[in-house]
Amino acid sequence: MHFDHAGIATDDADALADLYAAAFDVPVAHEETFDGMQVTFLDLGNGYFELLDPLPDSEGTIATYLERNGPGIHHLALATPDVEAAMAAAVDAGVDPIDDEPRPGAWGHEVVFLHPKSTGGVLLELVEH
Amino acid sequence: MHFDHAGIATDDADALADLYAAAFDVPVAHEETFDGMQVTFLDLGNGYFELLDPLPDSEGTIATYLERNGPGIHHLALATPDVEAAMAAAVDAGVDPIDDEPRPGAWGHEVVFLHPKSTGGVLLELVEH
Repeated sequence: MHFDHAGIATDDADALADLYAAAFDVPVAHEETFDGMQVTFLDLGNGYFELLDPLPDSEGTIATYLERNGPGIHHLALATPDVEAAMAAAVDAGVDPIDDEPRPGAWGHEVVFLHPKSTGGVLLELVEH
Repeated sequence: MHFDHAGIATDDADALADLYAAAFDVPVAHEETFDGMQVTFLDLGNGYFELLDPLPDSEGTIATYLERNGPGIHHLALATPDVEAAMAAAVDAGVDPIDDEPRPGAWGHEVVFLHPKSTGGVLLELVEH
């Protein structure tokens, strides 16, 4: 598997995208509304930063994360050509999935999140494009 | 700039490297003792996970981080061919560096860390190989 993206919780995706474009020359690759969030992907050439900005009055996991922790790094995602096989290999190695089976993620991907208690404190996502 | 690595704070780099190798097929690329830590790079093909494991009785920033937060994602690093120019561009865009100038990092790289208060809560590192 290889690096796909780092998910970043933010309360202002537009401002952060503008800042990162100016500071690090990483342009917006894709933007959509998904699961109660404005989701903005910044193009790193070999992967993405995924800015996750809850819509007003959202009560999803990112809104809760922001209330508890403030903005910052939320998760890391690894890309795989076969998310079901990757999930099965992770489970065989002792990792606990949060999702029972792959589900639709942003940008039309299939994703599975893995429980940080089983991955050294890291919220990891497996993603199939 | 492109993705270089995600830094992960851990209290057992060997165990986490073994788990990630089994679960995600990401082998160890490089390992060294640096700045009071066992530092283990896992090869993602297009970048790395950098496992940061303080040596016993270490009092560095990662040891403090682990005491406060437990294990987990610590920082994200972007690669640049010219860390001084990248640092200057980030400063021009309003980002505050933690380091006054590039300094030696693990694996013989030159690095600068940027203050999370100026980057949307993300501890970012610029790294020149």
